[in-house]
Amino acid sequence: MNFHKYVAAGNDFILFNGINKDYGNHNELALKVCSRHFGIGADGMMIVESSRVADVKMLYYNSDGSQGEMCGNGIRAFSKYIYDYNIVENKNISIETLAGIKYIDIITDELNKADRIKVDMGYPIFEGEKIPININKEKVIEEIIVINGKDYRFSALTVGVPHVVIFIEDIDKININDLGKKIETHPLFPKKANVNFVKVIDKDNINIYTWERGAGRTLGCGTGSCASVVIGNIIGNLNNKVNVNTEGGKLIIELNKDYKIFMIGDAIHIAKGEFIKR
Amino acid sequence: MNFHKYVAAGNDFILFNGINKDYGNHNELALKVCSRHFGIGADGMMIVESSRVADVKMLYYNSDGSQGEMCGNGIRAFSKYIYDYNIVENKNISIETLAGIKYIDIITDELNKADRIKVDMGYPIFEGEKIPININKEKVIEEIIVINGKDYRFSALTVGVPHVVIFIEDIDKININDLGKKIETHPLFPKKANVNFVKVIDKDNINIYTWERGAGRTLGCGTGSCASVVIGNIIGNLNNKVNVNTEGGKLIIELNKDYKIFMIGDAIHIAKGEFIKR
Repeated sequence: MNFHKYVAAGNDFILFNGINKDYGNHNELALKVCSRHFGIGADGMMIVESSRVADVKMLYYNSDGSQGEMCGNGIRAFSKYIYDYNIVENKNISIETLAGIKYIDIITDELNKADRIKVDMGYPIFEGEKIPININKEKVIEEIIVINGKDYRFSALTVGVPHVVIFIEDIDKININDLGKKIETHPLFPKKANVNFVKVIDKDNINIYTWERGAGRTLGCGTGSCASVVIGNIIGNLNNKVNVNTEGGKLIIELNKDYKIFMIGDAIHIAKGEFIKR
Repeated sequence: MNFHKYVAAGNDFILFNGINKDYGNHNELALKVCSRHFGIGADGMMIVESSRVADVKMLYYNSDGSQGEMCGNGIRAFSKYIYDYNIVENKNISIETLAGIKYIDIITDELNKADRIKVDMGYPIFEGEKIPININKEKVIEEIIVINGKDYRFSALTVGVPHVVIFIEDIDKININDLGKKIETHPLFPKKANVNFVKVIDKDNINIYTWERGAGRTLGCGTGSCASVVIGNIIGNLNNKVNVNTEGGKLIIELNKDYKIFMIGDAIHIAKGEFIKR
């Protein structure tokens, strides 16, 4: 079972080419291959399939075996893989995901390998019932959630997957694992949610600390970076082009006037070989 | 850079064949390849080299880049690799390690692959100054160490590497990460120590929870399993052949009358391929 491993802004992924190959039960395979000790180890698994509506289809699975709609860092790793291995030949690529068709621009290096990947992340979804969150508003901005008896000011939106954004002053004063888990699984979120803890450095630069639905604490999240910049821009903390420092690497998030989102970043090929499935 | 990944009782390892290849700075390579997100990910790295005193030499590195003398689970993975890939051809193998020459018996399956590996772990070292521990006794058995103001009864010995053994009633009542880190780095141990928390089920069966020097919390430790059975036998808690349940898998530890130790267990081949070093 031939695999490739990539990392993008600290999120690591196992990729399989499923265009002419059946990988059986994807959920089981993701659990096995993503296991840090008994598998190769990764935050998520992706399978390339052919698409009838786009250049290729991307199937995404979390390390707990559950399927995800989309993954912002994942789609950069996916794009580098399909470009560098000639599964697609254009630098402008359309990718079918469970969160709709995504459009990618590949920026190549002198060896014609994908150096940076610009992803049109589309528009955020703000309406409460579409996020989904059990708050019936057009935009869920600066609401209050109570965790361990304490109030936290949060905003929620969907960028491919549901996100919660919480601005913080000092990362050392909160327990990310505890807060992240409790917000992810809070009854407010019928499909759970990713949680982004955001420290604003200035209007052009932020640090993000990430808790991912189905994966727990990770070094970064592409869609979470988008979500955080959109909310920061709406409430006036941030400009419309922002350098995002995740714990695993850097991203640039750019917003159009109507909040269309573009994410620019790289992905690194770590390993390739054969996964011996048992 | 061709690699193999194996797991043995929950400890996972990256192996490289260094017989006709120079891998440069091993400490740097271990740090890179063992990184869970930016590398392939493992608890440790091993390199096969030729030996002038044994069939082969095993070099072992922890995930933090430091070199280790020996690794009980590691040497089973190492033995399965060198047997299955015909680097050695006998079923009785001698392996040079920094903790001396180790002798291995390969028990094969119907395909002539290594199914179980029996390791002659040699004799434990009990003398305080050889462990080393700053307690000048012939055997360091049932001494007291004070952590966070609380007394813990412990024994210490070396089985390849220094080990502390602490018998516990209830795993839920102790904080392994906190205790493990504080004992590992306690001034009593000039070369630090691995810490084994042991729950006795009956005289033939134990559960072990592991904190490893240089690797932190892991799913199991082969030399720690040996160390725990030796101490349990000395103080009368255990017989001389014991089933050990580590969190990552099962081992059998057998003692001769003079405490020579044999460890029997398996190892599983997970993946092979090319590591793309940067």
